[in-house]
Parts: sequence; structure tokens; C-alpha cells
Amino acid sequence: MADNLSVSPLAPAGGFPDLPVIAGVRFATTAAGIKYKGRTDVMLAELAPGTTIAGTFTRSKTRAAPVLDCEQKIGMPSEAGAAIVVNSGNANAFTGATGVASVKAVTKAAADATGIPEARVFTSSTGVIGEPLPHDRITVTLAALVDELDEHGIADAARAIMTTDTFPKGAGRTVEVDGYRIRIAGIAKGSGMIAPDMATMLAYVFTDARISRDSLQPLVAAACDESFNRITVDSDTSTSDTLLVAATGTSGVDVEGSDAFATALAEVMDDLARQVVRDGEGASKFVTVSVTGAASECDARQVAFAIANSPLVKTAIAGEDPNWGRVVMAVGKSGAEADRDCLSIRFGDVLVAKDGSVAPGYVETEAARHMGGDDISVSVDLGLGVGTATVYTCDLTSRYIAINADYRS
Amino acid sequence: MADNLSVSPLAPAGGFPDLPVIAGVRFATTAAGIKYKGRTDVMLAELAPGTTIAGTFTRSKTRAAPVLDCEQKIGMPSEAGAAIVVNSGNANAFTGATGVASVKAVTKAAADATGIPEARVFTSSTGVIGEPLPHDRITVTLAALVDELDEHGIADAARAIMTTDTFPKGAGRTVEVDGYRIRIAGIAKGSGMIAPDMATMLAYVFTDARISRDSLQPLVAAACDESFNRITVDSDTSTSDTLLVAATGTSGVDVEGSDAFATALAEVMDDLARQVVRDGEGASKFVTVSVTGAASECDARQVAFAIANSPLVKTAIAGEDPNWGRVVMAVGKSGAEADRDCLSIRFGDVLVAKDGSVAPGYVETEAARHMGGDDISVSVDLGLGVGTATVYTCDLTSRYIAINADYRS
Repeated sequence: MADNLSVSPLAPAGGFPDLPVIAGVRFATTAAGIKYKGRTDVMLAELAPGTTIAGTFTRSKTRAAPVLDCEQKIGMPSEAGAAIVVNSGNANAFTGATGVASVKAVTKAAADATGIPEARVFTSSTGVIGEPLPHDRITVTLAALVDELDEHGIADAARAIMTTDTFPKGAGRTVEVDGYRIRIAGIAKGSGMIAPDMATMLAYVFTDARISRDSLQPLVAAACDESFNRITVDSDTSTSDTLLVAATGTSGVDVEGSDAFATALAEVMDDLARQVVRDGEGASKFVTVSVTGAASECDARQVAFAIANSPLVKTAIAGEDPNWGRVVMAVGKSGAEADRDCLSIRFGDVLVAKDGSVAPGYVETEAARHMGGDDISVSVDLGLGVGTATVYTCDLTSRYIAINADYRS
Repeated sequence: MADNLSVSPLAPAGGFPDLPVIAGVRFATTAAGIKYKGRTDVMLAELAPGTTIAGTFTRSKTRAAPVLDCEQKIGMPSEAGAAIVVNSGNANAFTGATGVASVKAVTKAAADATGIPEARVFTSSTGVIGEPLPHDRITVTLAALVDELDEHGIADAARAIMTTDTFPKGAGRTVEVDGYRIRIAGIAKGSGMIAPDMATMLAYVFTDARISRDSLQPLVAAACDESFNRITVDSDTSTSDTLLVAATGTSGVDVEGSDAFATALAEVMDDLARQVVRDGEGASKFVTVSVTGAASECDARQVAFAIANSPLVKTAIAGEDPNWGRVVMAVGKSGAEADRDCLSIRFGDVLVAKDGSVAPGYVETEAARHMGGDDISVSVDLGLGVGTATVYTCDLTSRYIAINADYRS
């Protein structure tokens, strides 16, 4: 197995951030020995009565059992408290009827231990696909976890949900709405969008703002589309991706219709999404792909993802090579409307190509200087319309191969 | 620059095949010094009067100038002779008006040297994108090339069109139609479908059969869809892919409506397509992905390509890991109709997963034994309908990264 213990060179400086405490949310973690030795692998979050919960899930057709269970529960309005139980080390995916029984066992045990109705217990599992979840190892821990619930436990929670992640991911904001302060704090895990075995993306965001489930869900969906749905490490989509956003209302501040709240929520999710890319398997460079001038937003997104997912573009970036020919190729294959002779390409601020050929006065060493950094920007203007899109990705290195070729063997 | 000189471990044993000579087709090659030193990089093929020509081209929106020129000419019926000029080392792609002028210069010089009308001179260029083609180096060679034209030059032609290829690719058949013998011989280059810089796919197939252009084109399109359109190395699509099929009619045997001819033509193209995969950049394993039981042919193809293009599936294969969880993931993300609980997966003959979970009695060492070979088969039955598809690919190794990250630097 490859050594995945060294922290990504792209990890945020300063380590895990100081997150605001959200009244009404308490955390506990434990080492249940599901797969890992010597580290925590179960997290319990308890949410106060009155909490509203929204969420989004993977679009995979082979969704894991916990995802199907969460999807069913998320739509049901409730005033009861809630609980979130997450384990790492095993995804409980492609486990058939056994997997469904495992979800049932964990949710029932959590309901018994917390006094929260089973319909309000949400679970996620992340780790290896296809192996039965040893759910007894989780259920036996729940009573003790309830005793240890702590409002200050969010950093430990971020660590307990990690798999191949090389650093825990957290983001928070404190904002004023109508003169009153509300707080948002979130955690995420993932070394890809992406990556079914050990890098499935999970994210949990908490706020003390008061907002109905019906108002929260569209905010979450829109922010997700601009954050977690704008990142890619390797184009592979997980069977378990889950984002839950819980609003306890404990601040007493109503944020229905507040732009400040919507913006802050979007910022927290964007921050978490970028951290997932910064921990992309084998990543040595953070890459922002911006597309402008597309015939439509949809076309812009298609071109941006074609560039961000192209193995040839990603390996060129790993090699610090301003290989704009590969960007042209990716535009061409995207399926979006494109006219070779209207295309411009920039690496950083350097105009590389314009109107269908190399830019007049282009000096490769200038572009190469930008490629030598660890924050790379690739901008493409299609020259056709007003569609724009931005996507975040990382480069493709031999370390990605080492991690993924050697993972189980 | 990575060392790309060692021959792929998947190269066909026995080297370049003994191909039948096609009367009416003559070849000449030369070292024009376009980019490479000490090897041939220009090929001229001359086709006798009466030859019909069909072809297919990349669907990229950023097609190179020679491709646009060929596309325009291929539809025009003609009884005149024809010429094909191919250079390696420079793709003449994304070169704007300069690129168009280069095509014009080469086709005019070839017409002058051969006496063939310009409208019947087809050119291809393969190599680096975005650099002007030094077309003078080609045009000065043409008169001498005409003097050296030789019916037996096909193996040299296969070598002159190579870029990062590690072996020349040829395939041929001799078949009887209505008791008379006809011959087919083809060459191809490419270390991917794919790969815009130096691995663009080009293929030229010649036959002495007699068939009209209108009958030949649909045969070529159908066979291409089952061969060159069924391979992927890295999911990147070239700006220059070109397939030309030329029927000289010199055998005097009319093959209109002949199944034997159609089958032989398809076999030659399939053989060449597999050789391209066998020379995939960094490939250490040849992979056949077969999908059955899909709701439609289109769904089957979508699932097969999702598996064949998944970096996580490809790295698992490189690591000889029967990681069927990643195959489940790829099915789920494909967008095709799928039901987790109807899915079966085999590696080689070993049934790995069935009805939504691991197969009863599955022993991983048996699947691992299959993965240790260099000819890997991944079969998925979706259990929904009668749609089937087969796609060929190779594994993703750190050598792919080395070749593509270091290529220009």
C-alpha cells in the first residue's frame, strides 16, 4: 500500500480552522476498529429539537444503502431533534440486503441511545465498497458516545470521517443578519469528488440560523451546484456522496430570504469543496479552469469539465508544461459549440493563443513561469456568447497511480 | 523527455505482418527532418486511376486544417488517380490561416509531382499542435519520392507515419468473392484514440476490390464504429484522427453487396484498432470491457466506455487488483439505466458480483490470478435488456504520466 500519510502540499497553511460553536449541535467520536487501527472512525452528531435539515446526494445509479436511507428521510419535515452517524473504513455500498439491514441496525441503535426518532437518524458510511459493514462495532459504541457529546467536538468529528484524506477539512463564517449574529460551521472529507474506495465525499454543515426546511433546501442545492458540483479530481463519481446542512435555529435569528446568509453558506461550502481538491489524490497543483464566451452556461460547464478531466491536460500541468495544444484538444472533444478560430487561451495572465493560433508575441518561458507555481489558472474564452463556468481540479501525478494501483494489493 | 523507444510489452509477436500487395497502390517515404532526426517522417501513397476513396474523421470541434481539407474532398466522386501525403512530427493543428496555406502548398506540390489533380490529393499531419508546419521540407521531397514509388513499400509507410508509437501497425486479408481473390492491406498509427500531441490516430486501408464510393462509404462508417470507435486509451480525442479506405478496382472483382468483403474489411480495421490499444501510452495490459443486458445498445456503450475510461478502474488493473467496487462505481456514474441489485460482474471467467453484492463463494485469489495476466477481461451484465457493447482499452500506469508529463519539457 502506498504511503498516504504525508499531508498534501496544497493543504491550507495554519491547519484546521477555529470554527464558531453552533448552539444545539454536539459531537462525539470513537475508535470502533471498523477497518483502521489507532484512529477514530465513528462520529455522532446530535442536533437539538427544531433543527431543519436539507441535503444533496450522489447521482450515481449504484447509490449505497445509507444514501438511499438519507434520501428517503430528508424530505420529511419534522420538529424533532436529529442525529447524524458517520463511519469511515467501510462504505456499506453494493452490499445488497445485508447493507440495508446494517443501516437499520445503526439507525435503531442511535435512536435508542439518543431518544431521537429513527426517522431523524441520518447515516453515512465511507470506505471500501462491497464488504459487509461490521455494524455491531458501531452500535456498541453509541451509548458511550451519547455521554461524551460536546459542542466543541467539531474538529475531532472532521478527523473521524477521514479515509485517504491527508488533512481534516473545516470551514466557518459568522455573519450579521438584520443586526443579529448567526454562525455557520462545516466539515468535509474526500480526496476526490470522486473515488469510490476511500475518497468518497461527505460534508456536514451546521448553523444556528432559523430557516424552514423548504427554504433551506433550494439554497443548499444552488450552493452545492456552485461548489461541490464544480470540483473534480479524476472524473469518477462516488456511490456515497452526501451533503447535509442542519439549521438548529438556536440563534433565534430568522434568515428566510437573507442574502447575507445565502452568501455565507455558499462561501463555507465553496471553502470545503476547494479543500477537497487540495487533498486530491497525488495532487501537487491546485487548478482553476475558467471558461467564458460560451454559447450557454451548460456549454461553458461542459468545456470546463472536459479540460479539468483530461488526463493529458492534467499530466501536462503536473509536468509544469504550458501545453496549450492539449487545451485546444479538450475544447474540441467536449461536445460543446466551439469555433477553433474564435478561441483564446491564457495560463495565468499570459495570453497563449488567440483567434485560432498561437498569440502574437507569445513567449513560452512566461507561461512556463506560471506553470511552476502551485496555484494554476487555465482560462479559455470561446468567443461565441456569454456563458461562463469555473471548475476546480488538481493535476494528475504518478502518486495518483501509486495510491490507486496499490491500494488493496 | 521520457524514453519512448522501448517496444510496448503488448506488441504483437512476430513483428510487422506480411501484407498482400495491392496492385495500383505504390508507396515512398523519406526523412524530411520535420521534427525527428534519423528517421522517416513523410509518406507518399499513389493510387491508380479509377480508385474510389471513403473515409471517416475526428468529431472534434477543433479539427486540424488537413482534416478539414480531406473532409471536403472525400465526398467528391472522381475517376482520377489519387495521392495521400502524410507527415509525422507536426500536426498542423490550431495553426490558423498559416495551416490552411501549408495544406495548399503540400497538395499543390504533390499534384505537380504526380500529375494527379489537386482535388484528389489527401494529406494528414500528426505531431505537435500549434506550431506552423515547415511545409517546404515536405514539398522539396515530392519529386524524388515519385521516382521511388514502390508497390512493396507499405511496411516503410507504416514506419514513416509513427510518432510516439513503439511499433509499426499493419493488418491484411486475402478473401474470395464469387470465386475470385481480392486483397486488403492497411496501416495505422496511434498510441491512443486519442492524445493530441504525438499519438493521434491515422489509418489507411487499401484494397484491389472494385466498389463504388457510395457503396464503400457506409461499409467503412459501420466498420469504423465497431473498431476505431470502440477503443480508448485515455478518453482524450485527437484533432486529427483520419481513416481513409481506397479501393483501386485493379483485381477486376466487383464486391458490391459482398458480405465476405465487408467482413474482411471490418477484420482489418478491428485488427489495426486493437494494435493501437496495444501501443497505448504506458500500457502494460490489454483490456476488453464487455457489457451485456443493457436497456439499449447506446446504454451498453455508455457503460462500457465509463468503465474503460475510469482512472480508478484503469489504475486498479495496472495494480492487478480485482477491485470490482470500482466497476460498480463506473456503472453508477455512466448515466445509463442501471439497477444495483441486477448487476453481475466477471473478471475473466470468475463471477465476482451478482444481484447487487459479492457473488456467493467468490474467492479473491481466483480473480487476482486473472488480473496477473496481460490480457484482461471485465464483463458486466446489467440484467435489464438485450443491449451489448465491447470496448478495448489498456491500463493506466505511472509510465503514462511519465510520457505525458515530461513530453515537451
